[in-house]
Amino acid sequence: MRERDEDQDEDAPPGRLGRLRLRLYSQLDSDGWHGELMSPLNSAVAGMVALSCLAAALLTEPALAGLHPWLVRLLTVCAVFFTVEFAGRVWVKPESPHWRALGWRSLRGPTGWHASLDLLALAGIWIEVATGAGYGLSAMLRLLRLLRVFVSGSDTAMARAAREVTRAVHERRLELAVSFTVAGLVLMAASIAMYVAERAVQPEVFGSIPRAMWWSVVTLTTVGYGDATPVTAAGRVIAGLTALFSVALVALPAGIMAAAFSDALQRARRRRDPD
Amino acid sequence: MRERDEDQDEDAPPGRLGRLRLRLYSQLDSDGWHGELMSPLNSAVAGMVALSCLAAALLTEPALAGLHPWLVRLLTVCAVFFTVEFAGRVWVKPESPHWRALGWRSLRGPTGWHASLDLLALAGIWIEVATGAGYGLSAMLRLLRLLRVFVSGSDTAMARAAREVTRAVHERRLELAVSFTVAGLVLMAASIAMYVAERAVQPEVFGSIPRAMWWSVVTLTTVGYGDATPVTAAGRVIAGLTALFSVALVALPAGIMAAAFSDALQRARRRRDPD
Amino acid sequence: MRERDEDQDEDAPPGRLGRLRLRLYSQLDSDGWHGELMSPLNSAVAGMVALSCLAAALLTEPALAGLHPWLVRLLTVCAVFFTVEFAGRVWVKPESPHWRALGWRSLRGPTGWHASLDLLALAGIWIEVATGAGYGLSAMLRLLRLLRVFVSGSDTAMARAAREVTRAVHERRLELAVSFTVAGLVLMAASIAMYVAERAVQPEVFGSIPRAMWWSVVTLTTVGYGDATPVTAAGRVIAGLTALFSVALVALPAGIMAAAFSDALQRARRRRDPD
Amino acid sequence: MRERDEDQDEDAPPGRLGRLRLRLYSQLDSDGWHGELMSPLNSAVAGMVALSCLAAALLTEPALAGLHPWLVRLLTVCAVFFTVEFAGRVWVKPESPHWRALGWRSLRGPTGWHASLDLLALAGIWIEVATGAGYGLSAMLRLLRLLRVFVSGSDTAMARAAREVTRAVHERRLELAVSFTVAGLVLMAASIAMYVAERAVQPEVFGSIPRAMWWSVVTLTTVGYGDATPVTAAGRVIAGLTALFSVALVALPAGIMAAAFSDALQRARRRRDPD
Repeated sequence: MRERDEDQDEDAPPGRLGRLRLRLYSQLDSDGWHGELMSPLNSAVAGMVALSCLAAALLTEPALAGLHPWLVRLLTVCAVFFTVEFAGRVWVKPESPHWRALGWRSLRGPTGWHASLDLLALAGIWIEVATGAGYGLSAMLRLLRLLRVFVSGSDTAMARAAREVTRAVHERRLELAVSFTVAGLVLMAASIAMYVAERAVQPEVFGSIPRAMWWSVVTLTTVGYGDATPVTAAGRVIAGLTALFSVALVALPAGIMAAAFSDALQRARRRRDPD
Repeated sequence: MRERDEDQDEDAPPGRLGRLRLRLYSQLDSDGWHGELMSPLNSAVAGMVALSCLAAALLTEPALAGLHPWLVRLLTVCAVFFTVEFAGRVWVKPESPHWRALGWRSLRGPTGWHASLDLLALAGIWIEVATGAGYGLSAMLRLLRLLRVFVSGSDTAMARAAREVTRAVHERRLELAVSFTVAGLVLMAASIAMYVAERAVQPEVFGSIPRAMWWSVVTLTTVGYGDATPVTAAGRVIAGLTALFSVALVALPAGIMAAAFSDALQRARRRRDPD
Repeated sequence: MRERDEDQDEDAPPGRLGRLRLRLYSQLDSDGWHGELMSPLNSAVAGMVALSCLAAALLTEPALAGLHPWLVRLLTVCAVFFTVEFAGRVWVKPESPHWRALGWRSLRGPTGWHASLDLLALAGIWIEVATGAGYGLSAMLRLLRLLRVFVSGSDTAMARAAREVTRAVHERRLELAVSFTVAGLVLMAASIAMYVAERAVQPEVFGSIPRAMWWSVVTLTTVGYGDATPVTAAGRVIAGLTALFSVALVALPAGIMAAAFSDALQRARRRRDPD
Repeated sequence: MRERDEDQDEDAPPGRLGRLRLRLYSQLDSDGWHGELMSPLNSAVAGMVALSCLAAALLTEPALAGLHPWLVRLLTVCAVFFTVEFAGRVWVKPESPHWRALGWRSLRGPTGWHASLDLLALAGIWIEVATGAGYGLSAMLRLLRLLRVFVSGSDTAMARAAREVTRAVHERRLELAVSFTVAGLVLMAASIAMYVAERAVQPEVFGSIPRAMWWSVVTLTTVGYGDATPVTAAGRVIAGLTALFSVALVALPAGIMAAAFSDALQRARRRRDPD
C-alpha cells in the first residue's frame, strides 16, 4: 500500500506540518467533521461561494455599472480563495480513510466528480474574473458546490436531515407521481376546455391548446399572473373549477409528505426504544 | 368451455407463435406484469400517447404552421402504432385468466369499456390524421387511455399507489365535503359583501353577485389574477379577510389528507407486524 | 303532559294521516334520519335552497335582464315550496322526542332559532318574489338554512364529520391563534418596512401604513393581485422575504390541523379496539 | 434580605394597599395568572396597544386628515394609560417570587429587557403624541410589547401553545433548512434560466439575474403579481416548471411541520398515560 508523494510522511510521527494537515483535514472534509452544521472553514467556503454568486449576479445588472469594478475585485478575491482552498483539499486528501481504503478512482472530495465539479467551478470563476462579466452557468456550478458542501458530508446533522427528507420523498414517490399525474390530466383537460370556451373571444391568449396550457399551469399552481384571464361566463366557470382543484394539487402532496415524515419519526423512535 | 377462433391453439403446447403471444401478453396486459411501473412496451405506448397529444396540441397553434406537415406525419406514425397495438391487445387477450374465467362480457382490456375507449381514441387519431388538425376531445380520449394504462393494472406498484391515494380521499370524503361546504359558504358570503361594498364604484367588475363570485373564487384560491380588485376601504377589508380565510381553505384539506395517509401507513404496518 | 291541538291523535293508534306524518318526520327531521347524507326530501330542500340562491344571484346581473322574468318565476316556485316545507315541519314536529321531553321552548327544528331562521328566510324569498330582485341578505339567510340542514342533524355521517372537523379546530385553537398572531405581526412589520421603502416612489399605493397593509395582506396570503408591487430594490427585498414567509403562514396551520386530525383518528381507533 | 423602600410593608400583614397590590400583581404579571388567555387587565392592555397601533397607522394616511385630531387625542389617552400601567408594574413588582429570589438585575417584567422595551415604547408613543404623527418604529415597539404580553407568561395556555409551536419548529429546523436550501437553489437556477431565455425580449424585467430573481421569488411563492411574466415559449416552459416546483416548496414544510406536531401530541399523551 504505497502512498503517493504528497503524503510520504504518513507513517512517521506527525510533525508540525502533519498536525496542521490533520487539523485542516478535519475542517475541510465532511467525513472528518461531526457537528450539527458545517465546520467553521467550510462555513467560510460556503459564505464565499454565496458571495461570489451574488457578485456574479450583480455583474449582470446594467443599473449597477458603477459597482462593476468593485464586484470584479471581489470575484478576484473569491477566485484566489477558491484556488487556495482547492489546493488545500488536494493536500489533506490522504488523511481520508476513503482515500486509503478505496484507491484513487473511487475517491470523493477533491477527486472523482466532486473534484471535477470543483475544477469546473474554479475555471468558471477565473473566466468571470478575466472577462469581468457574470455568467449563469458559472454561478450554477458554484451553487452545486454549495449543495455538496452542505449535504454530502456523511456525518453532520444537516446531511442526515437532507438524507431523511430525500428518503421520505423517495419512499412516497409513487403516491406523489399519482397526484402529479392527476394534476397533469386536470391541466390538460382545463387547457382543452378553455381553448374551446375562449378561443373565439381572445385568440391571442387562448387561440391554441399550448397557449391555454400557459393559462392552466399559472392557474393550477395559484400563481395567477393575470396576463391570461377568461372573460366569457363559460371560461370563468372552467377557471373557477380549475382554481378549486388547485387546492387538491397542494393538499394531496402535503398530506403524502406529512404521512411520510410522521412514519419516519415513528420508525426512528421505535429503533431507539424497541418496546 | 369452447374458445373463439383467435385462440384455437390454446390447449396445444405453445409453439413459436404461442410463446410470442405469451410474452406479448405479459408486456401488454397489466394483469401479466408485476413490476413497480409499467412494462417496457406499455411505457412505449404511454410515451406515444403523450407524444400524439403533444402533436395534436401543437397542431392548434397557428404560430407553428410551418411545423404542421411534420406534426401530421408524427400523428400518422402514432395512429399506425396504436392500430397495431390494438390488434396486439385483441390477439393476446385469450391469455388473460379473466378472459377464461369470466366470459366475454366482463372482460377488461381490449373488450368492455376499456376496449370501447381504445376504439374511440383510435377513431379520434385517424380523424386527426385525415383532417390534419388537432381536436381537444380526441386528445382527452387518449389522456384517459394514458390514465388507464398507468392505473388500471392490478399489480404494478403504481396502480397500488393510485388505489391507496383514491382510498384515502374516499375514506375522508365527508370531512373534505365539510371543508368545501364551509369554503363555498365563505365564497358566497364574500361575494355578497363585496357586491354591496364595491358595486357603486366598480359596476363593471362588482356590479352583480355572479361577477363578485368570479372575484371571490380567484381570491379564495389565492390565484389573484388582478383583473378584479377592490378599491374602497370596506372592499379591501372584506378582501383581506377573504384572503386570510384562503389559508384555512388549504390548511384544512391538507390536514385531513395528512391524517388519512398517516392512518393508511399505520394500518399497513400493523398488517405486516401484528404486534 | 297535555299536547297542543296539532297532535291530538298522538296517543291513538296511528291512522293513515299518522303514518304519513311519521314518514314525513323521518324524512324532514335530522334526528329521525340515520343515513350517511341527508334524507331524499332534505336533499331536495337543499337543492331548492341552492337553486333559489342561484336565481337571486343571477337576478342582480344586468347582462341577464332577458332571463329575469323566468328567474322570478323560479323564485316563486321555490317560495311556495319553502312555505309548504315549513308547514310540514310544523306539522311533523310533535313526532320528535325532543318536543315531548323538553317542552315548547327548547325545541329545535321549526321552533327555537332554527324556526326563526326558517321564518326569516321565508320572508326574504317572498320579498324577493314581490319586488322581482335578488337580495344578498336573503340569499345569506338561505345559505345559513343550507348549513343547518347539512350539519345540525345529530346522526347523519355528514353531521358527525362536521363535528369532528369543528372539534379538531377547537382543540388546536391556541396553536392556530399563535400562528395567526405571528402572521399578524409579520404583516404589520412588512407594512411598516414597505411604507418606509416605497412611500417616496409610489405615494399612491405605499403612501401610508394602511395602504401598505393592503399590499401586505395580498402578498402574505399569496393572492398577489399586482395592483401594488414594489419597484425599488429595498422594496423588492422586503417583498421577497414577506412572500417567503407566506410559506410558513400556510405550512404552520396545515401542520397543526394534520396533527389534530391524526390524533382524532387514533383516539377513535383506540376507542374501538382498546388494546 | 433587605427590601427597597417601595415594599417596606412586605413583612407586615397586608393592609388595604397591600391587598390591592397583590390583586394588581396577579392581574399584571404573567407569573401570577394561570388562565387560558391573559388576565382581564392584560387583555385591556393588549387592546390598548392594538388600538394605539391602529391610530398611529391611520395617522400616516393623508386621506384621513380630518380624523387626525381625534387620532392624536386617542393616542394621548393611550399614552396616559400606558404610563399608569408602567407605574403599576413597577409598584407590584416586589410581589413577584423572581424579584425576591434573584435580585434586581435578573428581574423580568418592568426591569430587564422587558422593562427597557416598555420604556422605549412609552417614549415612542409620547413622541407620537408630541409631534402628532405616527411612526413605524414606535408601532413596532408596541407590537413587540403585545407579543410579550401574549407569549412571555409562563403559565397561560396561550404561552404554552406558543412554546409548543416554537419547539416543533426548532426540533425540525434542519429539515426545514434543507427544504429552504433546495428552494433557494431552485430559485437561483430558475432566475439564471429565465435571464438567458427572456433577456433579449424583455430587457426591462429579465435583463439581469437580480431582476429575474424578483420574478423567481414572486413565482416560486405563487404570489404572481404579473409585473414580470415570460412571453417566449422557452420562458413559459421554465416558468411552468418553476410554478410546479412551488407546490413542493409548500408541501415539504407543511409535511415536516405536520410530523413535528403529530410527534409532540403523541409524546404529550404518552407522558399522561405511560402504557
